[in-house]
Amino acid sequence: MDRDAIGVFDSGMGGLTAVKVLNQILPHENIIYFGDTARIPYGTRSRQTIQRYTKEDIAFLRRHPVKMIIAACGTVSSMLGADSPVDDMPFTGVVYPAARAACAATQNGRVGIIGTPATVASGSYETAIHNVDPRVDVTAMACPLFVHLVEYGYTKRNDPITRLAAEEYLAPIRSAGVDTLILGCTHYPIIADTIGDIMGDGVRLISASEEAAKFTKQTLEEHDLLTDSTEQGHNVYYVSDSVSMFRDNARHFLEDAVNGQVFSSRI
Amino acid sequence: MDRDAIGVFDSGMGGLTAVKVLNQILPHENIIYFGDTARIPYGTRSRQTIQRYTKEDIAFLRRHPVKMIIAACGTVSSMLGADSPVDDMPFTGVVYPAARAACAATQNGRVGIIGTPATVASGSYETAIHNVDPRVDVTAMACPLFVHLVEYGYTKRNDPITRLAAEEYLAPIRSAGVDTLILGCTHYPIIADTIGDIMGDGVRLISASEEAAKFTKQTLEEHDLLTDSTEQGHNVYYVSDSVSMFRDNARHFLEDAVNGQVFSSRI
Repeated sequence: MDRDAIGVFDSGMGGLTAVKVLNQILPHENIIYFGDTARIPYGTRSRQTIQRYTKEDIAFLRRHPVKMIIAACGTVSSMLGADSPVDDMPFTGVVYPAARAACAATQNGRVGIIGTPATVASGSYETAIHNVDPRVDVTAMACPLFVHLVEYGYTKRNDPITRLAAEEYLAPIRSAGVDTLILGCTHYPIIADTIGDIMGDGVRLISASEEAAKFTKQTLEEHDLLTDSTEQGHNVYYVSDSVSMFRDNARHFLEDAVNGQVFSSRI
Repeated sequence: MDRDAIGVFDSGMGGLTAVKVLNQILPHENIIYFGDTARIPYGTRSRQTIQRYTKEDIAFLRRHPVKMIIAACGTVSSMLGADSPVDDMPFTGVVYPAARAACAATQNGRVGIIGTPATVASGSYETAIHNVDPRVDVTAMACPLFVHLVEYGYTKRNDPITRLAAEEYLAPIRSAGVDTLILGCTHYPIIADTIGDIMGDGVRLISASEEAAKFTKQTLEEHDLLTDSTEQGHNVYYVSDSVSMFRDNARHFLEDAVNGQVFSSRI
């Protein structure tokens, strides 16, 4: 049992899609969130720069009382090496949880992956999938505009620009005949409607955010780190750019006003 | 006469559109360029963060032998206060040069402005235009996706996604009946074809990059700071993210391979 918070970080607001699921499945846990809004996006930067930013984000969270850290960012998760970046508490990215769920979901053994350019170039999801099941056939596509379309609110079902971009990005994945598609960036669940419309009913969408949240619950249980509190947990948000911009944009992600205090903090 | 370099900076690669013009009109001058590719974009961040980044960018250039500094970035130029950020050498942003050119160009007294959200929210171009000519009617529109469309190479004339975004952004400016449109972000000249097609032949496009380059030439002349060299000048580029990513993307901006050494430098 441990009343410390779950630490969650992302390049910006995408990780809020994981926070939303954590609040649903672990309602008594406290969450400390860090969004690096002064440096978003990560997914079009070099590996070296992403790894430097990741180190700083983790160091920031570790200055708070946290019992587990989640890299709720597909790009960060894809740039992690084989060793956990923290050695004294549980840690997870989003790649392995999503890969495991996709392997369990696929019936025809064909899985699609969409993510940022850095994520797709890294081959992280393919590697994770093939570690679970080497027979799965993988088709991956980078979607460089999606993070921006989501951050700027082009999120209505079938928004014409998002639809056009999605049709272009998803065409090779549709041609590959996948029955399962990993939304490999934590921003993408916000436009899952449009993606789902293009992929069609026969394709199961796997949210990396949701799978990471479920994996976190399982990990806390296994390590006996769940809180014994029966009160509603608190969320506290830190961002590296302005609080008001975060509050304005976060409602796209939480589908509600921000449920906690927000602070601006340079890292 | 002064053989020191002209210092040019931008959030990323947009400022290269100014470098290209500088190389044409001041072929003997040396240029030192800084592109903050590890933190691009600036135009969707808060004023405080943009001002902090600007200070760091200028400090970086000042560690090199420069005789004048150009903020070749519409967003940075829009966040500058009334006082020049350097007091011992000439400095210019792109806003005043573009505003002056637009006032000279318009026949019907109606000028359009497109820029990043931060630029448009600041009202910088309107203020500069009204300082030159208070009678000019101004219509401004933020185009949050344009920087990304340009940085990711959606730059072919009438690329469908860029065309769709441009039609949406430009509709209110077309309705306003402007005869002159300021491309208020240094990324936009790269998609001037598509913008021009939508605006029509009767509308003159003013490139903030080009006007800033011409203004720089005039300023160096006035301060007797032009080089006396008759050799071809050298360009040296510094970027805060990876050199290879810069080289790959810069050809969209220079319409040629990068004409100078490139270094990666954290700031």
